[in-house]
Amino acid sequence: MSAPMDRAIDLSWAAMNAGEGGPFGAVIVRDGVVIAEGANCVTSTNDPTAHAEITAIRRACATLGTFTLQGCVLYTSCEPCPMCLAAAYWARVDRVVYASTRATAAAAGFDDAFLYDEVAKAPAERSLPLEHAPSEAADQAFAAWIGKADKIPY
Amino acid sequence: MSAPMDRAIDLSWAAMNAGEGGPFGAVIVRDGVVIAEGANCVTSTNDPTAHAEITAIRRACATLGTFTLQGCVLYTSCEPCPMCLAAAYWARVDRVVYASTRATAAAAGFDDAFLYDEVAKAPAERSLPLEHAPSEAADQAFAAWIGKADKIPY
Repeated sequence: MSAPMDRAIDLSWAAMNAGEGGPFGAVIVRDGVVIAEGANCVTSTNDPTAHAEITAIRRACATLGTFTLQGCVLYTSCEPCPMCLAAAYWARVDRVVYASTRATAAAAGFDDAFLYDEVAKAPAERSLPLEHAPSEAADQAFAAWIGKADKIPY
Repeated sequence: MSAPMDRAIDLSWAAMNAGEGGPFGAVIVRDGVVIAEGANCVTSTNDPTAHAEITAIRRACATLGTFTLQGCVLYTSCEPCPMCLAAAYWARVDRVVYASTRATAAAAGFDDAFLYDEVAKAPAERSLPLEHAPSEAADQAFAAWIGKADKIPY
């Protein structure tokens, strides 16, 4: 087991034992150097998005002063949920290494596996009601973005 | 068009015009009262997770002092990406209303539609390399969670 993964797993135990949140830890490494760490702190910070990976990504970007993490590897004690997996894509990390699987998380009562099933469904077939309310003003914002000369793409 | 959606769309334009990020806005409402607003501020805050919906969810939870948003509706100017959709599930909102679609966002250069395709794939088939590194210590953390007497589930 690699040192960053050992650390991610240590963080998962620490978060759980300290009552900060679920047993999830993450470490972001670039060129062999740890850039940031994170652990699940959903219940202790009243932030349902404060998963270990999201927390580590936010901290790594703050440390580096960038909104992307090219060249970085995300080590996480458990397979990222769809929220955290998509965040890893948005952050442009090079690679993700995970230990436990979504099935193991699901067996402990977490929604990770369920959410993979839900996200893959058509909006109308999901258990969370999604209503499409088309709007010309909303679509025009995207047209304006396409033509915006000074935009910063991400 | 509803007042909360009008506001979400206004926020999308304002974020874009102020150079805070892409053209995305969101509003969270409970019992007809606006609890929180958010706009995309990825590039201005160096936070790839700072999408409109994530920002609004974090603010609503901070305002209410809770880690779930039962009874709330999330209005967003664009169909949530998989990160934000999963965040809406984790936050337990009652419903999501969106205006533009992932296809409209994709045509403006955003990865939303691509990410739906990626998240639905098996880990080994994704464009982002994911490596499974099984660990007994990681799995044991979930066993410990199952048996933890004072845990706060979420």
